[in-house]
Amino acid sequence: MFSAMRFENDQLFLVDQRKLPSVEVWLECKTMEAVAKAIEDMVVRGAPAIGCAAAWGLAIDAINHTHLPNWSAYQKNFQLAFDRLGKTRPTAVNLFYALNQVSALTKTFKNDLPMFTVADAITKKAQSLMSDDIRTCRAIGEHGASMFNRPLNILTHCNTGSLATAGYGTALGIIRSLHARGHVKNVWVDETRPYLQGSRLTAFELGRDGIPYTLISDNMAAYAMQRHQVDLVVVGADRIAANGDTANKIGTYNLAVLCKHHNIPFIIAAPRSTIDGNITSGSQIPVEERPPQELKEVNGVVIAPIQSTVWNPSFDVTPAQLISAIVTEDGIFRGPNFRLLV
Amino acid sequence: MFSAMRFENDQLFLVDQRKLPSVEVWLECKTMEAVAKAIEDMVVRGAPAIGCAAAWGLAIDAINHTHLPNWSAYQKNFQLAFDRLGKTRPTAVNLFYALNQVSALTKTFKNDLPMFTVADAITKKAQSLMSDDIRTCRAIGEHGASMFNRPLNILTHCNTGSLATAGYGTALGIIRSLHARGHVKNVWVDETRPYLQGSRLTAFELGRDGIPYTLISDNMAAYAMQRHQVDLVVVGADRIAANGDTANKIGTYNLAVLCKHHNIPFIIAAPRSTIDGNITSGSQIPVEERPPQELKEVNGVVIAPIQSTVWNPSFDVTPAQLISAIVTEDGIFRGPNFRLLV
Repeated sequence: MFSAMRFENDQLFLVDQRKLPSVEVWLECKTMEAVAKAIEDMVVRGAPAIGCAAAWGLAIDAINHTHLPNWSAYQKNFQLAFDRLGKTRPTAVNLFYALNQVSALTKTFKNDLPMFTVADAITKKAQSLMSDDIRTCRAIGEHGASMFNRPLNILTHCNTGSLATAGYGTALGIIRSLHARGHVKNVWVDETRPYLQGSRLTAFELGRDGIPYTLISDNMAAYAMQRHQVDLVVVGADRIAANGDTANKIGTYNLAVLCKHHNIPFIIAAPRSTIDGNITSGSQIPVEERPPQELKEVNGVVIAPIQSTVWNPSFDVTPAQLISAIVTEDGIFRGPNFRLLV
Repeated sequence: MFSAMRFENDQLFLVDQRKLPSVEVWLECKTMEAVAKAIEDMVVRGAPAIGCAAAWGLAIDAINHTHLPNWSAYQKNFQLAFDRLGKTRPTAVNLFYALNQVSALTKTFKNDLPMFTVADAITKKAQSLMSDDIRTCRAIGEHGASMFNRPLNILTHCNTGSLATAGYGTALGIIRSLHARGHVKNVWVDETRPYLQGSRLTAFELGRDGIPYTLISDNMAAYAMQRHQVDLVVVGADRIAANGDTANKIGTYNLAVLCKHHNIPFIIAAPRSTIDGNITSGSQIPVEERPPQELKEVNGVVIAPIQSTVWNPSFDVTPAQLISAIVTEDGIFRGPNFRLLV
């Protein structure tokens, strides 16, 4: 299984997901700022993967400050790194979850804890967040796959696989587990404009794993459903409110409405860390808007008048009423009235 | 107003719509085969424009056979040209309408009618189909605009403007007429994957006419509707069955479902020649599937694994039940039970 990141020699190596699938370029991040920039510029993307990368950013920052004597001398820098990484992408809550996990660890540090020990502890924490995420994804996959006992045509959106997580994937985790049970007829891969995570990344991952898929543009999903060629839609999440309202890649809400119209189960797959207990409904989730350029150019090829006004929200919010189930590592929460154990 | 075609010196000049908006290249078609190829390759597209181009193809073919003595000597060639042009694109019925109009004219020809007279008559017929189409579009625009008496946020899909018709446009004709009345707040332009007729052509046309628009990817329409920023969706048609079921650019059915969910009027704008009285429902409309390449590349830039399986239907069929009204040059037909006067 392809992995999006690895930590080696005190550096974070990230595959540049902007360049996949045509070329496989690995970026070496030697500083926290390099990691922050990589998250901002979408070298690495996918809510759980962003969380892992951010934790590695904190680890690298601590490693780069081992000339300082102890935690007390470093603490201010830690806060700066924490704030910088927290500002990279506003929507995915996993980013804040990972940062807060590391921050909680530092609360246990004594002022005179030697800086080498601090760096070592934060590095171990980042490593354990990675392993936790893989374990979590496998559990999501198994829970999700257990809901179905026949071969299915499954539609998915964006990329929620080993590139979007530490490994295995959330929605793609369910698809991987279904495939292992012989329950995948065909995966419809939405190309997922404007950033093409579906055609560039999901198609790439499924191809590598030998899972049969068919690429379509986002606007073809409805027609495939009308022709009775979609049994299930499963997608990931960037943030889930306490009531079950879910922010995910733009186009997700569209699919949820289509599922309702065609009576097709619409399933969210996400780790518990995606649930934000601090917010009661989707209207409170901040939705990132990205640069207009993403709709006017594809790798430098102009596809719209340069002076066009563009609206480019990166996410949308699907009301809980349209969600059949939310699958987490702890099991299946059935809608539309979610008790998400927040 | 920008025009997609002009006939000059016995040649058809077509703006290469595949290259807009970055460059404006005009193709000279000196033979019927060149016109057929231009339709097939989507140099010219849009149901009414295809019809006009095909009629010009017949005119050019007749002109190129004026070395023959008379209609009787040419008749077999005419049939070959008619058949060749009829095979270029299967979905749009306007193509067959235009070809049949010319064919009906030739039924009035005597065997010994001199070939110069034949060529002249067919050329005049092609010219009158062009003028008819412009007049028709203006009538559609006025009828459509008369339905609303306040400034609107309008969403449209694909390109239905002066590039898709002989001039003025169908759905864009309604938008032009609404704009003339001061009733356009903003036009949401769907980019319309995979061929990007929205971002490349509609944005280009609206920009030239100074009509305010905002470009979005197809999967953003639902989110704009959820935020109460869409008052009306208006699109064109490639073929309308006797019961009102409508084939149009892929993604149209998606919008119709979204309109139903959000209680937004969904309007089809099309000339009467788009109504195919020979078919009783949408299931009988042939839907063209285009090459997989359109989803794997944008102007040579690879955006998906080359070995991907692709489904690329160029059109979908919207059931009459989801259509609020069909606006033709003869007035407004209100749904969902259409009496289309076929």
